[in-house]
Amino acid sequence: MTETSGTSVRFPAPVTLRVIAEEIGVSVSTVSRVLKAQGDDATRWASAETVARIRAYAKSREYRPHPHAASLRTARSGLVGVLVPRLQDFVLATVYEGVEEAATEHGYSTFVTNSLDDPANKALRTEMMLQRRVEGIIFGDAHHHDPLLSAFAERGTPFVLVSRRSGDYVSATCDDLLGGALVGRHLVEAGRRDLAVLAGLPFASTAIERTSGAVDAFTEAGLHVAPERIEWGPFDAAGGRQAAEKILSRRPYPDAIFATNDFAAIGALGVLRDHGLRVPDDIALIGYNDTPLAAEMPTPLTTVRSPMHEMGRRGIELLIELLGGGTPDSERLTPELVVRQSG
Amino acid sequence: MTETSGTSVRFPAPVTLRVIAEEIGVSVSTVSRVLKAQGDDATRWASAETVARIRAYAKSREYRPHPHAASLRTARSGLVGVLVPRLQDFVLATVYEGVEEAATEHGYSTFVTNSLDDPANKALRTEMMLQRRVEGIIFGDAHHHDPLLSAFAERGTPFVLVSRRSGDYVSATCDDLLGGALVGRHLVEAGRRDLAVLAGLPFASTAIERTSGAVDAFTEAGLHVAPERIEWGPFDAAGGRQAAEKILSRRPYPDAIFATNDFAAIGALGVLRDHGLRVPDDIALIGYNDTPLAAEMPTPLTTVRSPMHEMGRRGIELLIELLGGGTPDSERLTPELVVRQSG
Repeated sequence: MTETSGTSVRFPAPVTLRVIAEEIGVSVSTVSRVLKAQGDDATRWASAETVARIRAYAKSREYRPHPHAASLRTARSGLVGVLVPRLQDFVLATVYEGVEEAATEHGYSTFVTNSLDDPANKALRTEMMLQRRVEGIIFGDAHHHDPLLSAFAERGTPFVLVSRRSGDYVSATCDDLLGGALVGRHLVEAGRRDLAVLAGLPFASTAIERTSGAVDAFTEAGLHVAPERIEWGPFDAAGGRQAAEKILSRRPYPDAIFATNDFAAIGALGVLRDHGLRVPDDIALIGYNDTPLAAEMPTPLTTVRSPMHEMGRRGIELLIELLGGGTPDSERLTPELVVRQSG
Repeated sequence: MTETSGTSVRFPAPVTLRVIAEEIGVSVSTVSRVLKAQGDDATRWASAETVARIRAYAKSREYRPHPHAASLRTARSGLVGVLVPRLQDFVLATVYEGVEEAATEHGYSTFVTNSLDDPANKALRTEMMLQRRVEGIIFGDAHHHDPLLSAFAERGTPFVLVSRRSGDYVSATCDDLLGGALVGRHLVEAGRRDLAVLAGLPFASTAIERTSGAVDAFTEAGLHVAPERIEWGPFDAAGGRQAAEKILSRRPYPDAIFATNDFAAIGALGVLRDHGLRVPDDIALIGYNDTPLAAEMPTPLTTVRSPMHEMGRRGIELLIELLGGGTPDSERLTPELVVRQSG
């Protein structure tokens, strides 16, 4: 996977706020706030004793704030940057609408840009946002193991993840493991015995957890899901088409397909049509996200409703808590199975 | 229509670059550039004689640049703002990807925000962009008659329209009149005699021109399209569903439905399914934009391919020409009918 090599572009990491935080036993954001504060102001963020320890440790290690990060903090910009893989993806566009709506209510303005899930582009766009003096960033494109994110965390600009989670970074996501489990259990109860999964992008927690949830439900029912039944690929119609074609190139056919994204499900629908296979009589098909198209399909699509708009709202609210010096917990919103006719 | 009242929010219009431009017989952007330039620098933008006339006229009329607009011009920000109705709309998200891609190639960075086609929100977001010191703006949400746009033009910040055109403002759009005509002629040739149109938003040039193109083609073939056959509404699945329900609440049914947006067509597909009507046997259905889902429908959707990505690229290129003092012409890209099985 390209994101784990990450040699082409690196964020400069001249200092390690994280190391200081670990040594002192406080959060990275506390260290960041204390070190940027002047004199007694720092006691807004930590006890006088802790402030003294942080400062002494930073001095002993010759800590220097990144010049750019320091300049960022000289004035409140009221601006938050949002990075998403692609706005073409209805899911992320909806999450962003939630971000924008709640940000406006809180007096922040936001802007959004596409990272295309490409590490070099992501680093470039993140720099662009910092140059625009954002106070914080919302990443909608985190990778499961994300060296860019850990490098970025060193720089001290507060950030929150939405849609995809990664490590222990603060995030607002859907409980995708549960979402996948709801699909798996429903299919088992409906008598399906042979599951295939159009799994999505292999570095996205959404894809990994939805797939795990469904496969685990089959396993718990004593039904084996072979590795070749799982096809990874983009979260869109073309990705779903390609993955479904691979699944249907092998015999026997599965009796159920779970696409971890509604658009991928619609791509699969085209492939099933091309093979003359009926949904759900020959193969059950279930999507994810309950986008507005799901209900309109000639065979209405069974899917999982995820609170996309709410996820965006919670993401910016968590970021605003971080900006205020708080230490919010991550939030996992609850998905809901919407049973229609496709499976 | 709310956008024509426009009393709630107005852009301040303390000066009229446009009046000066009309009096001197040059473009608004030339006046803007000449008046912000110092000394002989102004002759980059116009002849010495024209510069003198512009300055003399501006002085005689006590022209004062808007303080904000003036401050904007003290430094190149390299930043372009983009306003779209909703990024949830795949079409606009794709246009924006084209903008972003070409902007990056030209050394500009861009950001995008949702106006939700709401005048107050649009004014707010435009102000936000100016505060962020954008050099220019791309509007993807112009209304057919747009008082906000004419007020904004007075302020002198260069802008370009994409997707929807309005008045004589520089724009990169699809030839939607031709797109609609391609649909109308195709349906007439296929023997359809009674057209209904899910027309889209009544203040958007895209909706107006696609509808006109199709209706005119029927009229030219001697076939009347009654006013109640045309239903306006949002460019999405829910809007298409609602408009199609109205159309099918009347008898006799039409034998063809043209939805000016693929997602609206998919919403209509759900309604046709609910009525037990077959596509295309009972009613032909044609969409617009050739989004990736069109080909995957169980009955693949006939639609019009519009160069969405290219439109975004051309939009930013036109803006960069304006920023360089050029006077580019608007561009209308050519649509193409993609005949599949739905009509």
